[in-house]
This record gives sequence, C-alpha cells and structure tokens, in this order.
Amino acid sequence: MTRGILLFAHGARDPRWAEPFREICLRVRSLQPTVAVDLCFLELMTPSLQQATTDLVVRGITHLTVVPLFMAQGGHLRQDLPVLIDSLRAQYPQLTIHVTTALGDSPELLGAIAQWVGVISAQSTT
Amino acid sequence: MTRGILLFAHGARDPRWAEPFREICLRVRSLQPTVAVDLCFLELMTPSLQQATTDLVVRGITHLTVVPLFMAQGGHLRQDLPVLIDSLRAQYPQLTIHVTTALGDSPELLGAIAQWVGVISAQSTT
Repeated sequence: MTRGILLFAHGARDPRWAEPFREICLRVRSLQPTVAVDLCFLELMTPSLQQATTDLVVRGITHLTVVPLFMAQGGHLRQDLPVLIDSLRAQYPQLTIHVTTALGDSPELLGAIAQWVGVISAQSTT
Repeated sequence: MTRGILLFAHGARDPRWAEPFREICLRVRSLQPTVAVDLCFLELMTPSLQQATTDLVVRGITHLTVVPLFMAQGGHLRQDLPVLIDSLRAQYPQLTIHVTTALGDSPELLGAIAQWVGVISAQSTT
C-alpha cells in the first residue's frame, strides 16, 4: 500500500462533532481497501494534518491525497491549508501530495444536499 | 405561499465562501417552487437568522423550517442555534418553527460524500 488519503476536517470542542467524519472515513476505507485512509483536523481535535501525514509516511505511503471535508473554501482552505501543505512538502520531499477541492465545489454533492433539504424539511412539517 | 425554508450556514470573512450555499439555495428553490427559500448565516455574513425570519414573516410565512447546512453538530448547533430559535419563538409566537438535523446526520449524504472522496482522490493522482 503506497497511496494514502487524509480526510481533513475543521475540528470542534464537542467530541460528538467528529462522528459524521469518522463515519465517512470508515465508508471510504471500505470503498478503497487498497488505500490508507485516515482522518485529521485543522484545530481543536487530533491528529493534526502534520501528525497524520507522519503516520502515513512511517507506514510507507508515497502518494498522499488530502481531501478537505469543508463545505466551502474560505480562509481555512485558501490560506491555512496551503501553509500546512508547504510545510509538509519541505519535511517530506519524497512524498507526492495532492489537495482536492472542497465538498461545495462538487455540483453532484450540491444537488444531493438540495434534494436532502427537500426531504428533511417535508418530514419536519408532518 | 405560507411555508418557508431557511438554510442556515456558518458564515465566513471571504465572500466566495458563500457561493456553494447560494447554489444550494437556488437548487432548493427550483425543487420547491411553492415554498419560500432563503439563506442566512450565524455570523460574519448577512442576513442573520433573525433578519431572514423577519423577512419571511413579513411575506406571510406561517410555517418555517430551519435547515442547518453544517457538516456536524457541535456547539453552534447544540448551543447557539437553540438560543436563536427560542428568541424567534418569543418574537413571533404565531410562527411554527421546526429545526432539522445537520448534513452529517444523513446516512445517504455521508455515503454520497464517501463516493465523492473516492472519485476526487482518484482524479488527483492521474
């Protein structure tokens, strides 16, 4: 196994906040059994992106894809994440690192969310 | 038109951050042409939930569903939002207000996100 995916979430004080992200991580692992898949956080939760990357490098991963589980691109993805990625590239020059777009850049996911809004709001009034 | 949906997002300093939420709002309007659908924010962007609710009440909405466009339930949804909703209920006792679960509470959306992670991470390595 040489490919890794790090799901990158914001983090929060309430530990229950991480539950949907842990569920996504389990589902991606199940869909991609030949890829090392882990979850990491920008702040308030661990592991950090730095720690999670180190763990994958130790496990022999040479190609890393960072997938931001953020709804939209604001300062965290446009400013904070590039700084973290630059630091990782300096620390692990042999590691290939790709960063994907965010959830809200996917027309398919926006469509799925809009459908969900319709269903959940209809349920709430019955 | 007496039913309204308010899509409730966090807000950010970067105006581009709101774009996916505006797109979801347009899509929900298209899917639900008989419902008044608007977007509002917890902080850093306008309108606030309070202002958006007032606008809907002025337009004659009597049944409001608030749909949090948050990935997961942390302090903003467990603590901040209930305070805002209590305040709205006191201000508009004639308005029925429902609050739905968050995106990450939907197994279907978690599955769609996991599928998207697989597609987007495969694209990033080709």
